[in-house]
Amino acid sequence: MSAPKSPAKSPQNRSELSVTPMSEDISAWYNDVIARAELAERGPAKGTMVIRPYGYAIWELLQRQLDDRFKATGHQNAYFPLFIPESYLRREAEHVEGFAPELAVVTHGGGKELEEPLVVRPTSETVVGEMFAKWISSYRDLPILINAWNNVVRWELRPRMFLRTTEFLWQEGHTAHVDEADAMEETLRMFGVYDEFARNVAAIPMVRGEKTPGERFAGAKRTFTIEGMMRDGKALQSGTSHYLGTNFAHAFDITYQDEQNTLQHAHTTSWGMSTRMIGALILAHGDDRGLVLPPRLAPHQVVIVPIGRGDALGTTTAEAQRVAGLLREQGVRVEVDVRDQSPGFKFNDWELKGVPMRVELGPRDLEAGVVVLAQRVGDEDEDGRARKHTLSVAELVDGMQARLDAYHELLVARAEAYRDEHSARIDDLEAFDAQVAHGFAYALHCGEPTCEATIQERTRATPRCVPTEGPEESGACIACGAPSAYGRRVVFARAY
Amino acid sequence: MSAPKSPAKSPQNRSELSVTPMSEDISAWYNDVIARAELAERGPAKGTMVIRPYGYAIWELLQRQLDDRFKATGHQNAYFPLFIPESYLRREAEHVEGFAPELAVVTHGGGKELEEPLVVRPTSETVVGEMFAKWISSYRDLPILINAWNNVVRWELRPRMFLRTTEFLWQEGHTAHVDEADAMEETLRMFGVYDEFARNVAAIPMVRGEKTPGERFAGAKRTFTIEGMMRDGKALQSGTSHYLGTNFAHAFDITYQDEQNTLQHAHTTSWGMSTRMIGALILAHGDDRGLVLPPRLAPHQVVIVPIGRGDALGTTTAEAQRVAGLLREQGVRVEVDVRDQSPGFKFNDWELKGVPMRVELGPRDLEAGVVVLAQRVGDEDEDGRARKHTLSVAELVDGMQARLDAYHELLVARAEAYRDEHSARIDDLEAFDAQVAHGFAYALHCGEPTCEATIQERTRATPRCVPTEGPEESGACIACGAPSAYGRRVVFARAY
Repeated sequence: MSAPKSPAKSPQNRSELSVTPMSEDISAWYNDVIARAELAERGPAKGTMVIRPYGYAIWELLQRQLDDRFKATGHQNAYFPLFIPESYLRREAEHVEGFAPELAVVTHGGGKELEEPLVVRPTSETVVGEMFAKWISSYRDLPILINAWNNVVRWELRPRMFLRTTEFLWQEGHTAHVDEADAMEETLRMFGVYDEFARNVAAIPMVRGEKTPGERFAGAKRTFTIEGMMRDGKALQSGTSHYLGTNFAHAFDITYQDEQNTLQHAHTTSWGMSTRMIGALILAHGDDRGLVLPPRLAPHQVVIVPIGRGDALGTTTAEAQRVAGLLREQGVRVEVDVRDQSPGFKFNDWELKGVPMRVELGPRDLEAGVVVLAQRVGDEDEDGRARKHTLSVAELVDGMQARLDAYHELLVARAEAYRDEHSARIDDLEAFDAQVAHGFAYALHCGEPTCEATIQERTRATPRCVPTEGPEESGACIACGAPSAYGRRVVFARAY
Repeated sequence: MSAPKSPAKSPQNRSELSVTPMSEDISAWYNDVIARAELAERGPAKGTMVIRPYGYAIWELLQRQLDDRFKATGHQNAYFPLFIPESYLRREAEHVEGFAPELAVVTHGGGKELEEPLVVRPTSETVVGEMFAKWISSYRDLPILINAWNNVVRWELRPRMFLRTTEFLWQEGHTAHVDEADAMEETLRMFGVYDEFARNVAAIPMVRGEKTPGERFAGAKRTFTIEGMMRDGKALQSGTSHYLGTNFAHAFDITYQDEQNTLQHAHTTSWGMSTRMIGALILAHGDDRGLVLPPRLAPHQVVIVPIGRGDALGTTTAEAQRVAGLLREQGVRVEVDVRDQSPGFKFNDWELKGVPMRVELGPRDLEAGVVVLAQRVGDEDEDGRARKHTLSVAELVDGMQARLDAYHELLVARAEAYRDEHSARIDDLEAFDAQVAHGFAYALHCGEPTCEATIQERTRATPRCVPTEGPEESGACIACGAPSAYGRRVVFARAY
C-alpha cells in the first residue's frame, strides 16, 4: 500500500477554481488557466507536454477545420517518417545551421549503437525532398500538393506550454511546382488560408506580412507569417508559409523533364501551423476570469446547468437533456453539467473553461417554459457582470447558431479593437521603446540584421513582418537613420 | 545540373502496371501491390515507411470510423509525450523485459548529452500511468476513459511495410477503473469494438479470443485479440485489448480513496489498433490483379472513366462529372479519371488500386442515357472476367449505396468462406503440421510454454488465441499428450 497522496484532485476538494488575474501577472495567469481548465500539463521528460482531453478537443476541432481547407485547395494528406538520417539535414546548408542546435538524436536502437545517428524530425523538408525526387520525373507529375499531420521535436531550453515545447503537434504542407510563379502562388494561397482560418475560426485578426531575411525559415527564400496580438501587446507568430526556391530541389535532386525534355529543378514550398495556436487562443481572448474560447473551437459551445434540489433537480436535468438534444439537432456542441456540485461552482468552472454560452434551468424556468442565458463576454451590465436573458426554449434553440456566429464576430471585433489600440506608427526612437513595451510599432527600418540586433538588445522587440497591406512608404531607419528598406513600414514587437 | 534520372516515374512511362500474381509468390505480390498502388514506400531510415496519399486516405477513413466508435463508448482523446525517461519503463518488470530489445533511445538533445536517456515511446502505459496517478484521487474520478492517436517506435530487424515497421501509427486506449469487474468490462467492450469494426468496416471476419500466457502483452494480466486470416492461410493479429490488473497501478502509484476512505489501487486497461490493419486489408482481400478494397475504407468507392476521342471525350467527361456530382450527393466517394491515358490503362490501374465499382461512359452510352458498371470482384462471367451491366444514370445513382453495402457483405462472406475452408479441428500431429502450412488448426493443447515452443520450432505456428466462441472441450494435448488446458481448443497458425 502506498502512502496517502496529499491534496485530493477531485473538483469537490479543490480549494478554489480562480486564477491569478491576467492584469496582475499574465505569465502566472497563463499557467493557472492551462492547469485549472485542464488543457495540458508537463510531461515527465523536460519540455514535453501532455495535452489533456479538454485541450485536445480544441486541437481536434482546429485540425478538422484546417484539414477541410487543405483538401478544398487540392492537397492530400500523407505521412513521412519520424526518424531522419543525420546526413540528410546537412545537405541544405542553411537548413542544418538553423536546426542543428535544436535536434534530438537517437544513437541507439534495438539494443545496439547505430552506424548513423537518426535525428527526430524537427520538420520534414529533407525526407520529403528525398521522396519528391523519387516521385517526380516529368512536368506531368507536378504540382505535388501534400500535407502531413504529425509531431516534431525541437529542443527547448525555456519551454512554455503550447508556445514552446520540445515536442509539438502540427501540420506541415509540402508542395513541388514547375516554376517560381506556380510555387509563389501556392505559398501565398496557404498564407491566405492561415489568415482566413485565424480570423474565421480562431477569431484572431492577424497582421499578415513577410519576414525580414534574418527571421526567415532556415532554407527558405521567402517566409510569410501571420502574427497575432496577445493581451499583453506581444506578438505570437501563428502560421508560416515558405517559398523554398530550388534550395531543397538542388540538395535532394528534385528534377523533372519539362515539355521540351529539358531537365529542370522543381520549386518547392512548405507551410505549417501547430499546437501553438492553442496558446494564441488563450492569450488573445482570455481575461481575468480565465479562458474565452471562440465558438468554432470550443469543445462545448453551450453548457446547460440544471438547478434544483431533490426531485426538482431530476426534473430540470431531464428538461436540460431534452433542450440539449434540440440544440444538438441544430449542430450545436452542448454539455449538460450533471456533476454533484453547486451551481456556483459550475458557473465558475465553465467561465474558467471559456464556454461561450451558459444556460441555467431551474424549476420555475421549467414551469414557465423558459431558460436563462448568459454569454461569457461582451454582454455585461454596469458592474461588469454577465447579463442574464430569459428566453423561451424555442427562442434559445432556433437562435443559437446565429448567436454563436454573432459571438464569434464580437470576439474578432474585440481583438481587432485591442490590437488597433495597441498599434501605432512610430517615427521616434523614444516613442518606439515605449510602444513595443505594450504593443506593435510600425516603423521604417534599414533592413540591416545588425541594426535589428541593436533594437532587440535594447527593447527585446524584433521585426515581426513587413505587412502585406498598408501604404508604401520610405524614409530614414528609425534606429540608425540609414535609408529604409522594403518600401513599407515594418512591424516591431516583443514576441512569444 | 544533375544527371538525368533513369526510369521516369510518370504513369505514361511505366513499363507495366501488373503485379506478380499472388498465387505465384504472395510476398512479391504484397510488395508489388504496395508500390504500384502507391500505398507506401520505404523511408530513408531503416524500417521506416512513407505512407503515400492513397494509403494515408485509407488510414484517415479507418481513423474516423474507429474514433467515432471510441467516442460513442465514452472515450475522449488526449496526447501523451513521445519521449519517456528510460527509468519509467523499468518500473514495471515484465513491461521493460518485453520492450527493452525494441527501444530507440535518444541520448543527445540540443547539442548536449542527456543526463538520463529518453526512450521513444514503444507504447505509453508508463507515462499514462504517471499522469493517471496525478489525475486520480477519489473513486469519483473513475473511470477515466482516454484514447490517443500517435506514432510509436519498436525496432524491427525484419521490417515489412504496414505489418512490421520500426515506426507505426496507431491508437492506444488507456483507462482506469475502481475494480477488476469494471476494468474487465471495458477490456471486453473494446475487444468487441475492434471485432465489430473489423467485420463492419474492414470486411474481415475475425477469430476472437484470448492470448495464451506466453503471447500476452508485456505487463498484462489478460490479452484479448482479433486474428484475421490472410490469403495464404496465415494469421494476422489485428487489434488487442489488455486487462492490466493493478500492475501499472502499483508501478506508478495510481491510487484512489474509495467510498469508505480506504486507499485502493486502480485497475487499468489498454488497447490498440494500428496501420497494420492496412496490411490486413491488403492480405485478406487482394487477388492476382491487386488490391480489393472494402468500400467503407476505399478512398474512391466508384471511379468513372469517360471514353471517347476529341470532342466526344469532352462531352462524356462533362457527363461523368455530372454523374459524379449526383453520386456525391448520395454520400458516395467518386473519382472521375480525366488523366490523359487510354481506358485500358485506367481500368488496370483502378483494378490494381482495388476500387470497388468502375463506371464506363462512352458517347453511345451518353446518347442512350446509360452507363456501364463493373464490380471489382464477385460478379465474374465463366471466363473470370467482370460482368458489365448497363444501367440508367438514375439506377446507378439511386442504387449505389445499396450496391456498396452488398459488395461489403460479399467481401465478408468471401473472407469467411475462405477462412472456414482453411480452418480445421485437428487431433493428430501429422495433420496438424499439414494444416498450419495453409490455415488455422483448432487443437487441444496443454498450455505449457515449452510445448508451444516445440510446436513453433517444428512448424513456425504459434497459438493465436483461445477462441471466445466454440464448444467447451478437453482431452490430451496434441503435441505432448498431457491434459489440455483452457477447456477449449486453441487456434494455431503461422502469423505475420
